[in-house]
Amino acid sequence: MLRHDASPIHPIGAPADVSGLIALDWGTSSLRAYWLQAGKICDTRAHAWGIRHLPEGGFQGALIDITAGWPRLPRLACGMVGSRQGWLEVPYLDVPATRTQLARALRSVRADDGMDVHIVAGLRNPLGPDVMRGEETQLIGAFATQPALAEYSSWIMPGTHSKWVSVRQGAITDFCTLMTGELFAVLRQHSILAAGIDGEASDPDAFARGVVVARDSGAAGALSRLFSARASMLDGALAAASVPEYLSGLLIGEELRSGLATQRFRQDAAIQLIGDAALCERYRAAALLFDLELAQPIADAAAHGLWHIACDAGLVDAGPFAASKETSSC
Amino acid sequence: MLRHDASPIHPIGAPADVSGLIALDWGTSSLRAYWLQAGKICDTRAHAWGIRHLPEGGFQGALIDITAGWPRLPRLACGMVGSRQGWLEVPYLDVPATRTQLARALRSVRADDGMDVHIVAGLRNPLGPDVMRGEETQLIGAFATQPALAEYSSWIMPGTHSKWVSVRQGAITDFCTLMTGELFAVLRQHSILAAGIDGEASDPDAFARGVVVARDSGAAGALSRLFSARASMLDGALAAASVPEYLSGLLIGEELRSGLATQRFRQDAAIQLIGDAALCERYRAAALLFDLELAQPIADAAAHGLWHIACDAGLVDAGPFAASKETSSC
Repeated sequence: MLRHDASPIHPIGAPADVSGLIALDWGTSSLRAYWLQAGKICDTRAHAWGIRHLPEGGFQGALIDITAGWPRLPRLACGMVGSRQGWLEVPYLDVPATRTQLARALRSVRADDGMDVHIVAGLRNPLGPDVMRGEETQLIGAFATQPALAEYSSWIMPGTHSKWVSVRQGAITDFCTLMTGELFAVLRQHSILAAGIDGEASDPDAFARGVVVARDSGAAGALSRLFSARASMLDGALAAASVPEYLSGLLIGEELRSGLATQRFRQDAAIQLIGDAALCERYRAAALLFDLELAQPIADAAAHGLWHIACDAGLVDAGPFAASKETSSC
Repeated sequence: MLRHDASPIHPIGAPADVSGLIALDWGTSSLRAYWLQAGKICDTRAHAWGIRHLPEGGFQGALIDITAGWPRLPRLACGMVGSRQGWLEVPYLDVPATRTQLARALRSVRADDGMDVHIVAGLRNPLGPDVMRGEETQLIGAFATQPALAEYSSWIMPGTHSKWVSVRQGAITDFCTLMTGELFAVLRQHSILAAGIDGEASDPDAFARGVVVARDSGAAGALSRLFSARASMLDGALAAASVPEYLSGLLIGEELRSGLATQRFRQDAAIQLIGDAALCERYRAAALLFDLELAQPIADAAAHGLWHIACDAGLVDAGPFAASKETSSC
């Protein structure tokens, strides 16, 4: 365990203040930075500086820029920044995995300013195989907000690579990736279905039609119905500008159909959601057509997860936060 | 019915010789031209002049160039050339549809050389909806080669947009499009799974692993296993250069799993194949892992289909061919 307060491992670079944290949610396409004090978010910044879109100066430059003017605090990052293409590769932990195990598996890289950046490990599911980086931290944050969810819950985390996750007795036990978001993007931009469509209409009916076609595709699955987007348009039954909505419904519907068909994920209570608010709203609307309830998404989960992992790792002093959730020293 | 011999509809442009045919298989990405005499192929030419990749001079220019030096003969085309983006839109015929109905539904466009180009209609399946253009002609050609297949058969026509087809009592009765080829292309070129992979290994084992993963994905379907291509690579279980083969196996396997799951297509006899020889070989290899027999693909099906539709439409004189398949006057 890293304990900078008791016996500093990196005396030169150790931060002066361990009551706060710079939390970095660093993915493939975006970087989100949070300044936290005693577990509360004081300030948030975001840039399109994912690990594949770094500014001049690379990881160092992005870090300096996005934290400019913030105090000198311990720094903890999660997401693709810990991948082979990231700043420092942090080996995956196999599921089942707990918050304590994640806190013990941090790895650190020394930045040019003399201070470390600590990075959370991703998780690997030997059943698959499958991997995640970042979502494990969001789940830890959600458990801290609603401790009952750590005992027994199922999760959908919509995105470029959606994750379906099972949680049992404080551990992330099983998960599966569905490439719904990326599939939509490549079909939208590069396929005959939608590449030629310039305008794009908001069309909840077309979205719902796509969901229902996927839901009713049965064991054949909605890949066998993908071409209906084009055939319906040629038929005059679907406006060209509504094809993207139909396609979105079809792919989200297929994710739900497929995820429910596996029966790997608990459905006897509301399934929890974490993700972009507008995207989560699409999933909730689609789920209604499956008679399935999805909970309201949990916000700022990554920031809270990074705080709690940092506490467990001794990077920050959990004291004030543990004593009172209202304490703030921003 | 168009009968240029009895009472010419277009006297100025009517061909002098009705014992032969210029047959054009004109798709989205390629144009294949055949010169036939008495039902036999005398010469074949191909260019990458699909309707989206026309040379200077457009349709007219492509036609003049690809038929240069061939005799002045009736011309019949099938495929996307009859679509809204083609030379002349020919309305779809609904299934069930027979060769006679296709011959009656030809439409014609006058070319700059004063002669017509006749175009075969595509088919529409109200159940779907779904559409095809070109495959109907290939099927007619295959029936002419093996008449028993017109009575009762199932077909897989692999390609960018694979078709699964049912044939009963001389009619095309049902079909479904699976976008396997296009999905492979967009994921190979634009997705995180394979976009970064420069080299590409021939790896039958990786292909077979992909097929088996799809076959065993059950009702969840192989979209839920797509990400395994990346996770297996990160795991060291799959070489980066073998990811395209794995992905090809996964998508062809999913087409087979899905097509068989629908039970719309007869499986109590060998399923027939028409398509690119190398691609058909992949389908046959994948089918073995499903304990499924696919017949050897039928060659030159489009050319023979165009010939027989031209005979039915009276564009050419079926006499010599009907009398003897050995007759040739190339």
